[in-house]
Amino acid sequence: MQDNEFPVNVVAVLGGGGDLGGGLAYRLVRAGYEVVIGSRDAERARSAVEALRQRCANMGQSDVKCHGTDNVDAAARGDMVVLAVPYASQRETLDAVATVVAGKIVVCATVPLMPPKVARVQLPAGGSAGKEAQDQLGEGVHVVSAFQNVAAAHLREDGPVDCDVLVTGNSVAARSAVINVAGRCGIVGHHAGPIDNAAAAEALTSVLIGLNKRYKTHTGIRVTGLSSAN
Amino acid sequence: MQDNEFPVNVVAVLGGGGDLGGGLAYRLVRAGYEVVIGSRDAERARSAVEALRQRCANMGQSDVKCHGTDNVDAAARGDMVVLAVPYASQRETLDAVATVVAGKIVVCATVPLMPPKVARVQLPAGGSAGKEAQDQLGEGVHVVSAFQNVAAAHLREDGPVDCDVLVTGNSVAARSAVINVAGRCGIVGHHAGPIDNAAAAEALTSVLIGLNKRYKTHTGIRVTGLSSAN
Repeated sequence: MQDNEFPVNVVAVLGGGGDLGGGLAYRLVRAGYEVVIGSRDAERARSAVEALRQRCANMGQSDVKCHGTDNVDAAARGDMVVLAVPYASQRETLDAVATVVAGKIVVCATVPLMPPKVARVQLPAGGSAGKEAQDQLGEGVHVVSAFQNVAAAHLREDGPVDCDVLVTGNSVAARSAVINVAGRCGIVGHHAGPIDNAAAAEALTSVLIGLNKRYKTHTGIRVTGLSSAN
Repeated sequence: MQDNEFPVNVVAVLGGGGDLGGGLAYRLVRAGYEVVIGSRDAERARSAVEALRQRCANMGQSDVKCHGTDNVDAAARGDMVVLAVPYASQRETLDAVATVVAGKIVVCATVPLMPPKVARVQLPAGGSAGKEAQDQLGEGVHVVSAFQNVAAAHLREDGPVDCDVLVTGNSVAARSAVINVAGRCGIVGHHAGPIDNAAAAEALTSVLIGLNKRYKTHTGIRVTGLSSAN
């Protein structure tokens, strides 16, 4: 029933030319979704699509449903819209797509990092990027925050991702839809509460960046204690 | 060298009559530390000590170095002082012990939960309980935030705890000392950056509380991707 409420065939990835967006687009295409990569610059999106096609071809996959266009067109075409732009561009991007995402799920994957101290938690005035997105778009859009803690490098590999994803949002059905999509992409997602809780995953990203620097690796997290519950 | 900077033989646990404080005190005693349990009410602390002695006796341990007293006396006697009081009592407790903790490590284990919505992230105006503690005590005290994500129920068991601890604080040596103590207690701690990053662990607690309610279990987290680094 939850899947019926939010059927997902086409996923738009705004900022799909970036590290995280490109990684998510790769996973989505590999999972069989039709993906529309958006960028402020449609040419950049098309280049990202070409790179993605090449990568899939190298893995033996030729039936790739992937297109590149500008952010607004991409958002209009997606059943689900993933926001993977730098935090500095989030407000402007959402302003541009606000009218075409009405009633849809917008997955906020942005992290409010404040360079140069990206390993220091510096949450924004609005509490979190996810909360700010929900406040900006209003209750007619189902903002779900997810994917902050997954290393882009691991998204570009095949196989299960050794990092759980905390999925927050005010609509349980919308969260379930995102958890379902993540699962098809080899990523375990957990219901992590209302959009206010996006602060947890966003703050955690700076902690993981610090660990990555310290140990020259790509860290993530797993939720423990669920083995008997799942 | 780091251990020499902060030698730890006696650990004070303020709020040691509570759930988390009692669990930490049990682990510390079992690990061979001398523990001074503090409470606003010294009688309550002595009751907690009696319960702890009984618990250790049941496990075959009779040489328990544990005492109960008021918070100020406990803080004065500890080489390391663990703050495990409810968030609502944090400021008042730190005011009371400020002069006796100068130069020491104060481990802030409090979580700024705002009942009744304890599964909703609601970080305080100061950013986090840990940051507020450091700001209140000043740079002459080494505030280290830790232990927020460990279920008290698991601390009362023996054996390794299936939850990593994010250890934040502005002094790397102080963090290392806490990670060392945690390790002796069967708990893996990670350097998680400056005290600003306490927000990550504190916010995560509300997420885990939500998961615990949803799945009727005690969840925690593990940091992944470190296997080759540790």
